[in-house]
Amino acid sequence: MKNQKPLLTILKIGGKLVEDEQKLNYILQKFAKIKGRKILIHGGGKAASTWSKKLGITPNMIDGRRVTDAATLEVVTMVYAGLYNKKIVSMLQAIPCNALGLTGADLNTIQSHKRVVKDLDYGYVGDIDFVQTSIIQQLLNNHITPVFCAITHDKNGQLLNTNADTIASKLASALAPFYHITLKFCFEKNGVLKNPADDDSIISKIDYQDYQKYKTDGIISDGMIPKMDNAFSALNSEVEQVYICGVDAIHQNAGTSIKL
Amino acid sequence: MKNQKPLLTILKIGGKLVEDEQKLNYILQKFAKIKGRKILIHGGGKAASTWSKKLGITPNMIDGRRVTDAATLEVVTMVYAGLYNKKIVSMLQAIPCNALGLTGADLNTIQSHKRVVKDLDYGYVGDIDFVQTSIIQQLLNNHITPVFCAITHDKNGQLLNTNADTIASKLASALAPFYHITLKFCFEKNGVLKNPADDDSIISKIDYQDYQKYKTDGIISDGMIPKMDNAFSALNSEVEQVYICGVDAIHQNAGTSIKL
Repeated sequence: MKNQKPLLTILKIGGKLVEDEQKLNYILQKFAKIKGRKILIHGGGKAASTWSKKLGITPNMIDGRRVTDAATLEVVTMVYAGLYNKKIVSMLQAIPCNALGLTGADLNTIQSHKRVVKDLDYGYVGDIDFVQTSIIQQLLNNHITPVFCAITHDKNGQLLNTNADTIASKLASALAPFYHITLKFCFEKNGVLKNPADDDSIISKIDYQDYQKYKTDGIISDGMIPKMDNAFSALNSEVEQVYICGVDAIHQNAGTSIKL
Repeated sequence: MKNQKPLLTILKIGGKLVEDEQKLNYILQKFAKIKGRKILIHGGGKAASTWSKKLGITPNMIDGRRVTDAATLEVVTMVYAGLYNKKIVSMLQAIPCNALGLTGADLNTIQSHKRVVKDLDYGYVGDIDFVQTSIIQQLLNNHITPVFCAITHDKNGQLLNTNADTIASKLASALAPFYHITLKFCFEKNGVLKNPADDDSIISKIDYQDYQKYKTDGIISDGMIPKMDNAFSALNSEVEQVYICGVDAIHQNAGTSIKL
């Protein structure tokens, strides 16, 4: 028999879903109907690049990660924490779902440090040290739905750009002692694809051994690798269910189920 | 004998103070040291104009009020709710002061409606209908410091640009039944000036009769008029102390005291 931990759904939605208002509305309607406690994390990377260009700043990406100089940090803070976070919160409130938009700085929910420079200097990018679970539990107990964007802080006054998949994974890991968690990484495809050219070639289940093989075979590559690593990291911290899936899998366990 | 309502300080800081990082740091250090419950409201209008111009949008101001078309609403949401609100929250957390950045959409704290078009169409500008005092009281009771920016929503999914002085006044009025409130409108001068050219010509006290006379004489004009109206509106709602003052009056009751 399972113990009496409450259920918690943590949904991460990718930037391409956030930037299409019609899709976003469809997703938020579904998200709001999830029973029980829930947390939303959103990206917005494509829009950050668009706004950067409008402002004459050339986006600098290395292996799908944004190099964040001071000017780019201003842009991502504006786009993630301002434009998209508040659009999502206002749309959720209309449904209604009592949303609260957060960066890691708000209530000191997620503390990170500026990534240590080894070969590459990613600039103002944060690696997460600490999730303050007590305040997040208080919010959830009060039927508040936290909506996190991809910005954290170092508790010394510095905001830091932080990968939204990683935020979702770290939140799930930190909250796993208190909840039965389902973590879903929701993106524009319906799951991890065996053949990138065939949207129907969804792999229904991937365990750690499969993952290694798929990487060797080049079936899983590029941006899917950090997403998979975040999924396994959560599973290793006792998060019970992890999916990489499309928007139609918000209410059902479809897409690719990730297992240890 | 006063009843046992707790003290609450509501501080509004003007855009010119927010945009100078050194000044902002000085103010936040002082703000964090205010004893008891406190709420911060910040502007950012000058920066919104700067960012608008960078994006090729010409700011359109009528009587000091920003006409907010759809593109301008995106800019003010990014600049107020993103850039400045999160910079302030991260700086306060470093002091430390447990800040939570909010728009009116977050937790549905401040609900407004799009201003009705009479002679002028201000676009996506909100006139406040409702402050949800219960959730703000819960935050304050949990030693959380709300930091509001100048964005509200209509509860139908529409964000609205809303004057920060008005937000401060409406918050104070709505919370007056529960707290002994001191409301300070803090800006780049040290008070209301008798002679705009002389920074030392501070009027120490203005009552409603004085205000009418100063308006007739042209001593109080332009942007100071809505600020004064917001001050009197709060006093009429049982807010106990209202000041228009400079940053050095955060810890003492200096500047211009407004009285009924």
